[in-house]
Amino acid sequence: MSLLNTPVAKTNEVFETVRAISRETPLLTSAALDDLAGLKLFVKAESLQHTGSFKLRGAFYRLKNLAPAERRNGVVAYSSGNFAQGLARAGKILGVPVTIVMPHDVPLTKVAGTRQYGAQVVFTKPDGRPREVVAAETAANLAESGQLALLHPFDDEDLVLGHSSLGTEILQQLKTFEDARPLDTLLVPAGGGGLAAGIAVALRAHGSTTRLIAVEPVGYDDLARSLAAGERQRNANASSTLCDGLQAVSPGAVPFSVLQQSLSGAIHVSDQEVTFAMRAAVEHIKLVLEPSGASALAAALAAKTRGLELGKRVGVVCSGGNISADYFAKLVAEAPRH
Amino acid sequence: MSLLNTPVAKTNEVFETVRAISRETPLLTSAALDDLAGLKLFVKAESLQHTGSFKLRGAFYRLKNLAPAERRNGVVAYSSGNFAQGLARAGKILGVPVTIVMPHDVPLTKVAGTRQYGAQVVFTKPDGRPREVVAAETAANLAESGQLALLHPFDDEDLVLGHSSLGTEILQQLKTFEDARPLDTLLVPAGGGGLAAGIAVALRAHGSTTRLIAVEPVGYDDLARSLAAGERQRNANASSTLCDGLQAVSPGAVPFSVLQQSLSGAIHVSDQEVTFAMRAAVEHIKLVLEPSGASALAAALAAKTRGLELGKRVGVVCSGGNISADYFAKLVAEAPRH
Repeated sequence: MSLLNTPVAKTNEVFETVRAISRETPLLTSAALDDLAGLKLFVKAESLQHTGSFKLRGAFYRLKNLAPAERRNGVVAYSSGNFAQGLARAGKILGVPVTIVMPHDVPLTKVAGTRQYGAQVVFTKPDGRPREVVAAETAANLAESGQLALLHPFDDEDLVLGHSSLGTEILQQLKTFEDARPLDTLLVPAGGGGLAAGIAVALRAHGSTTRLIAVEPVGYDDLARSLAAGERQRNANASSTLCDGLQAVSPGAVPFSVLQQSLSGAIHVSDQEVTFAMRAAVEHIKLVLEPSGASALAAALAAKTRGLELGKRVGVVCSGGNISADYFAKLVAEAPRH
Repeated sequence: MSLLNTPVAKTNEVFETVRAISRETPLLTSAALDDLAGLKLFVKAESLQHTGSFKLRGAFYRLKNLAPAERRNGVVAYSSGNFAQGLARAGKILGVPVTIVMPHDVPLTKVAGTRQYGAQVVFTKPDGRPREVVAAETAANLAESGQLALLHPFDDEDLVLGHSSLGTEILQQLKTFEDARPLDTLLVPAGGGGLAAGIAVALRAHGSTTRLIAVEPVGYDDLARSLAAGERQRNANASSTLCDGLQAVSPGAVPFSVLQQSLSGAIHVSDQEVTFAMRAAVEHIKLVLEPSGASALAAALAAKTRGLELGKRVGVVCSGGNISADYFAKLVAEAPRH
């Protein structure tokens, strides 16, 4: 059975499992934000999740399904940050030792956030290859020498299933609104594609008619090119983006197999559009979003130039919120004005 | 019957009434914030309420109880901002025309937020007297000439009752935590005292043992002096504070009658402590708080110098989040470091 055809009973079971340790993050609306976008927006404030991002969901579900011996020995993973914190917290809850390999230039708040949950952090040094490649190699070596289970940050069925709980939660929350019609479109940030795939699983299981659209930073359009090519494509190494959480080299094989059959399209956002969205989030929904976390909102606010039909009901997943106060203040202060 | 002795059935009825149009704002926890404070904190993120503050709660309950003729003619009130937005939205929901008198120097986001709900805004000019006095006079004149019901921004029984819904909501949310013991202390910002009084009513109705402590800006210690004197005292006119939402001339008579019998104390916070708290909110709970909204968190983070017993379970009401992005970025960038 393919992951995309996961039965609704299973997605509901996953939702109940994850809900026991996650926070129900609010689904926010704002008339001012609607005016700015020309859409009716529903903002899923997953930046308010424990550890500041959705990553806790998949990480917890993944660790929960470890074999007993794996649980005892512990796990190792590489992450530029948000997966690290999510995994560290999940490990702490379940008593599973967690080692995280991080690029040397990761924001300090992400390192502190990871250590705070008792995880061990190992840094890699750049050697000219993509930082994810170096980190993956280091993690594999640690796994072998320490008999640790090697976890991939997004290319994993249980991670995708765990992330589906976010999609299920949105569908449940929508039912509580006065106008409870389904969303026309749901915008989801995509790096490796794990979150988007998880949400696709939830939408499919619930028979939802909502169109799922992935949002990638300009220069990291691997998912869009992969969909067009019908097979996974890689990003060039040279691009830069403020969205450090969305710099995957290529979509994961597991997420891609789901997204190939479920995604309605992809939108690409520039750094300027992302900081504009961060600024709008401060003024209209009072949220602190890191650049990756504001990317889907950036796509919504650029609706007029991105082929999104105005007036529609559009969901926006905002995750995460892990950014230093200084860097956040700088990006907001320098962001384009309305 | 005194307001403080409102029966629990009544506070529950108020809660249900307000809940129909308010958002259940999250009660957030953060291990990093706990470390910083030396307390176990529960942050009520009321900055995420519709209109960005708790004011919607009381305003809606107040308008709901208008006589039919008052509903038709509409209401007028003076407000430096957050009450204005809350009242404007409540009026829009209930179809009651709302006129707001504002000081000329109110932040622009608050004016825009008020007009967005269809309320009419009238500005006053400074004439050397306290701005609240001038605004109150203007509002009274408008009420007389237009046969409008004159609403006070905090000195009103129905407002206090409406605000009690925030206290009830906190008590309900606490029950969902794994450790559901009562809070030892609850810190609430106090300008006119309406919110603190409302929460006192809810705590008393539910037989809670939680100690209620009001937080005032340095230089606006009217509530603390009033409690000490046993009668309402006024602030000097010359003080300045970043907390523009807490600049009431003196506590309201209605809130004071409640707080005299229910408050366990008051804590005063400096501008530096407030911006430190705004910065900590960005990093640890991903919230945008205006200075007034960060004041109770500032008190918690200053626990060690304010006689708060370390290690205790302390609730912190954070409301509101209405501040321009530029000003917010500036205050966060210039805030003291940990």
